[in-house]
Amino acid sequence: MDVKQHTPRRRGRPPRQRENLTETRELLLRAGLEVLTEKGFSATGIEEILGRVGVPKGSFYHYFGSKEAFGLDLIERYGLFFARKLDRHFGNPSLAPLERLRSFVADAMDGMARYEFRRGCLIGNLGQEMGALPESFRDRLKETFEDWQARLAACLREAQQAGEIAPDADTEQLAVVFWIGWEGAVLRAKLERSAKPLEVFAGFFFASLAAG
Amino acid sequence: MDVKQHTPRRRGRPPRQRENLTETRELLLRAGLEVLTEKGFSATGIEEILGRVGVPKGSFYHYFGSKEAFGLDLIERYGLFFARKLDRHFGNPSLAPLERLRSFVADAMDGMARYEFRRGCLIGNLGQEMGALPESFRDRLKETFEDWQARLAACLREAQQAGEIAPDADTEQLAVVFWIGWEGAVLRAKLERSAKPLEVFAGFFFASLAAG
Repeated sequence: MDVKQHTPRRRGRPPRQRENLTETRELLLRAGLEVLTEKGFSATGIEEILGRVGVPKGSFYHYFGSKEAFGLDLIERYGLFFARKLDRHFGNPSLAPLERLRSFVADAMDGMARYEFRRGCLIGNLGQEMGALPESFRDRLKETFEDWQARLAACLREAQQAGEIAPDADTEQLAVVFWIGWEGAVLRAKLERSAKPLEVFAGFFFASLAAG
Repeated sequence: MDVKQHTPRRRGRPPRQRENLTETRELLLRAGLEVLTEKGFSATGIEEILGRVGVPKGSFYHYFGSKEAFGLDLIERYGLFFARKLDRHFGNPSLAPLERLRSFVADAMDGMARYEFRRGCLIGNLGQEMGALPESFRDRLKETFEDWQARLAACLREAQQAGEIAPDADTEQLAVVFWIGWEGAVLRAKLERSAKPLEVFAGFFFASLAAG
């Protein structure tokens, strides 16, 4: 076989194959998010995710360099998905700033109920599991929380400007506290299969803002 | 061999062997607590725990009926260990009631720092992992949180009687909120390898009590 004769055709993959690669990669990431928000990283075998998508065992490395690389992609994907969700709520001009946070809370409660409180937060799950995960996950998980904190802090500053929060309240710190407690509440909501822990923590947080 | 001749000797194990059985069981439970507070249940192989204690592979079922039974024993053991810790703090007559909670918080911060924030809370770890764990764990984990809540609620009622908390505050609900947020803070302390999240959440909780 004359290699030269084939060279022009080999520049890049044929379009259909490239499309399938991207599509399958996408399906694997989605399946990964579904399984990992429920069971975490350590309890999940790559085989289970491949099986969901109908990709043969052993072809995982065709799509991702390693389970670690897959995990890092999932963290990024989930972080962006969640940041968009926060922007939708916190950027809603038809609501007063604190009402925007309330609408996020209500949405999250609905979201967890939709999957019978089986699925939690990928970042919380992996944060909890960090003792058994690749060290490269740590900074990404921390950065994701910092990103959510910054988005919430901006919303709380608007609430402060609108007079919904005391003028001397530390909105940065309040945003940190919210996500600390929220992750604890998601954990308990999964355990108790109930929205109650989310409601209880959010209720306490809002009451504290009003009293402060 | 005449079975009758041996029957009397077979009533129970010889004392030394029984002692070793109990001792080894105890060592396995301690090793299990060490590993599981750090890595959780799913990421931990029974082999790792057996290896730490120097017990040969395959003899696990000599000590525990199953990995599930071992997990249930660990939950009970950790729950009691932690309840005793809470009693030590919350029952300390030399401190005002809210100071007792502060002393628990300081103790927990020291305890996490001692293991470089690698070890968290067994009940929080397993709660987070519940999606991948035997269903029998769920009620035990919930009951453990309820037990800690009841102990804290009693301390908060004392604080209320002493005038440290507003007379109309719902001490039961405050105890629920504390453990929700505390587990979130332990998760973040492990992730960030820092006592800061514990300090931030506790600070917010105490400030809210004072303002409420």
